[in-house]
Amino acid sequence: MKVDGKEMRPIWLSSDNPLEVHVIDQRMLPHELVIAPLKDVDDTIHAIREMFVRGAPLIGATGAWGVYLACINAPGGQVTDAWVETEAKRLKASRPTAVNLAWAVDRMTARIAAVDGDGPRVRAAREEAAAITDEEAENCRLIGEFGVALIEEISRKKKGETVNILTHCNAGWLACVEYGTATAPIYEAYNRGIDVHVWVDETRPLNQGARLTAWELGKHGVKHTVIADNAGGHLMQHGMVDLVITGTDRTTWTGDVANKIGTYLKALAAQDNNIPFWVALPSSTFDWEMDDGVREIPIEVRNPDEIRYIQGKVDGKLVQVLVPPAGSACENHAFDVTPARLVTGFITERGLCEASGDGVLGLFPEKGKEASCR
Amino acid sequence: MKVDGKEMRPIWLSSDNPLEVHVIDQRMLPHELVIAPLKDVDDTIHAIREMFVRGAPLIGATGAWGVYLACINAPGGQVTDAWVETEAKRLKASRPTAVNLAWAVDRMTARIAAVDGDGPRVRAAREEAAAITDEEAENCRLIGEFGVALIEEISRKKKGETVNILTHCNAGWLACVEYGTATAPIYEAYNRGIDVHVWVDETRPLNQGARLTAWELGKHGVKHTVIADNAGGHLMQHGMVDLVITGTDRTTWTGDVANKIGTYLKALAAQDNNIPFWVALPSSTFDWEMDDGVREIPIEVRNPDEIRYIQGKVDGKLVQVLVPPAGSACENHAFDVTPARLVTGFITERGLCEASGDGVLGLFPEKGKEASCR
Repeated sequence: MKVDGKEMRPIWLSSDNPLEVHVIDQRMLPHELVIAPLKDVDDTIHAIREMFVRGAPLIGATGAWGVYLACINAPGGQVTDAWVETEAKRLKASRPTAVNLAWAVDRMTARIAAVDGDGPRVRAAREEAAAITDEEAENCRLIGEFGVALIEEISRKKKGETVNILTHCNAGWLACVEYGTATAPIYEAYNRGIDVHVWVDETRPLNQGARLTAWELGKHGVKHTVIADNAGGHLMQHGMVDLVITGTDRTTWTGDVANKIGTYLKALAAQDNNIPFWVALPSSTFDWEMDDGVREIPIEVRNPDEIRYIQGKVDGKLVQVLVPPAGSACENHAFDVTPARLVTGFITERGLCEASGDGVLGLFPEKGKEASCR
Repeated sequence: MKVDGKEMRPIWLSSDNPLEVHVIDQRMLPHELVIAPLKDVDDTIHAIREMFVRGAPLIGATGAWGVYLACINAPGGQVTDAWVETEAKRLKASRPTAVNLAWAVDRMTARIAAVDGDGPRVRAAREEAAAITDEEAENCRLIGEFGVALIEEISRKKKGETVNILTHCNAGWLACVEYGTATAPIYEAYNRGIDVHVWVDETRPLNQGARLTAWELGKHGVKHTVIADNAGGHLMQHGMVDLVITGTDRTTWTGDVANKIGTYLKALAAQDNNIPFWVALPSSTFDWEMDDGVREIPIEVRNPDEIRYIQGKVDGKLVQVLVPPAGSACENHAFDVTPARLVTGFITERGLCEASGDGVLGLFPEKGKEASCR
C-alpha cells in the first residue's frame, strides 16, 4: 500500500542485504515510521513478542521469514532437520493465540525437509517465505473483492448515502502484508467510489485502532472517526453503524472467533441491534482441529504494564504515561472469543460463508477430513 | 471517607471562609490531590463542565452549593427571585445528562423562594445546600446497607470464596459525597469482613475507573484490579465475575439507565452469561417524566480532545499525550443508555427493586402521580 506516495509492505527481504529481513516497528506508529532489521531468530521472536509486528497474517509471514533466518544462521552453515525443528519450535512459542504462526512455520519446515543440501534448503526457505507473504497479500485482495459486495448492497439500500462501518483493532494492511482482512472490503469500496466512513475503535490497551487503523485509513484517504471502545453500543442503538467487520487471530472451523479483547462485546451489541457482524480472514487463520473456541483457544495474558502505561506524543517526543495509581493491580487478557452464534458470516479468499462448520467446510471441502467432524 | 487517615468529602463549605466552597479537583487524581476553591457561579459551572467534580449525586450537591454562591454574590446583596432564577438556569445548563443537577437546583430555588429577606435567603440557601449534601451521603449509606445483602448471598453460595464484582466508571464516594452508590455495598461488604475483589473498568476516555475508583478502593484497602473496558466480556465468559454493580447519571422511572458510555456493553455481556447486573442510585437520580431512556435521555457529546489526549504521569509530571494521528477525527459520546430489560434491579435508599415502572413505583409510591403512568 502507499505511504506518502511510496509503495510499502510491513515486512520485506532487504534488497541491499539478503541476510536481513526488514519490518515496520509498529509500536512507534502513528507518530514515527521506524524500520527495524531482523538478523536472526532471536530478533524475530523479539519482534513478534514485543509487537513490532502483529496481526495474524503478518505474524505468520514473520514466522516464515524467521525460519529463513534460522536457515542462513545455521551453525557451520549446516541446515539440519534438527536445527530447523528446534528454531521452528522457538518461533511457534513466541505468541500463543494467532494460529497463522504455527501454520506458516510448519509449512516452512515441511518445504525445507523435502529438499536436500544446505544451499538448496536456504533457497527453498527464501522462496517459501516469499510465497507465503505473497499468498497472504493475494488472499487479502480476494477478501476485498468478495467483501465489497456487502458494502455495495448497503450503499444501494441507502441510495448512496454514507455506509458506516465499525471495526475493532487493526486488521489492515499493517496486520496482513497488503489490503488487510477487515479493511480489504473497505479499501475496495473506497476505490470503487462508494461513500464509506469507518468508526475506528481505539482498541485498548495498545490502541491499535487509534494508532494503526486510523493512520492507514488516513494515508489512503478513507473517512474515519476514532472512538472509545465503549462507544460502539450507543452508536449501534442510534442507527449510526450499518455493518461491523473485524479480523481474527484464530477461528475454529465451527465458527468461533478469537480476536482482540472487546470484539465479543461489539458482537453482542450488533446482535442486539440487528446489525450484520462479519469477520474477514484468510483460510490460514482457521483452526481445523478445535471445535469449541471459548473453551479451547488459548488466550494470551500479556504484561499488565500495557494497561498501566499509555504511549503517546507530547512536546514532539514519544513517552509512556502512568494512568492508574502505581499500587493498583492490572490484568491484561489480549483476546476474547466471540461464539459463532453472534457472527453473521465470514469473508474469505474463496468467498462468503456462514459462521458454522457447514458454512466453512462448504467453502473448504478439502478440510473436511482434517476437521474433527461429527 | 478516609484519605491517608484524614476524613474527607469531595465538596465542603470552607471552615475558614464561608464565602468559598471547596472541592477536590478530580482531574488530577490519582497522582495529585488538589483542592479548588469555588467563589461564584462561574467557578461552579467551570468545575462542573470541566469535571473537577463529576458523578450524578456530587454534580447535584455542587449545583446546590452553586445556588448558595449565587445568593452571596447577588448584585447589591439583593437576593431577588429573578437573580436566583437566572443563575439557577445557567447552573442547570452546565451538564445535560445527570438529572440530579436540575433536581438539586430546583429544590434550592423552591426553598429560597419560600423565604423573605436577603439575609434569611442566604441562610436558607446555605442550610439547604448542606442538607442536600448530607442527604446524599445518608442515601449512599442506606444503599450500602441494602446492597450488601446481594454480596453476602453470593459469598454464602461460594462458601466464603472471593466475590468478584465488576464496576464501570466511578460511582464511589468521589462521585457521591460519601460511600458512593455502586461502591457503597462493596465498602459495606469489606467492612463486614466479606472477601471481595473488584474488577475496575478503566473507563475510557477519561479513565475515571483507573484514576478514581482504583484510588478510592486502594485508599480503603479493598482488593481490586484495573482492566481495559474491553475485558469484561471475556472475564464473564470464564466465570471470573459474580456480580456487576454500576451507578447511573439518570434512570427513567421505567428502568432505563443512562450511565457512562460502555455500560450498555457490560449489561449485554452480563445477560449473555447469566450474571446479575445491578444499578445503585439514590432516588434523586430517577427521572419521573421520561418513559423511554434510549430515545429521550439527552446524551452529552464532549470535546473530541478527551479521546485524542490521555493524561498520565511521566518523570513526576502530569502530561497529556496524543495517541491517534493528529489529523484523524474523533467523537466523544459521554453516556449510553442500558434498556431496563438488561438490568436485574436497582439498589436505592429504600431497598431493592426490579428495573421496571412497577418495581420503582413500588418503592416510591408517592411518585406515582408525577410519573406518566399508563
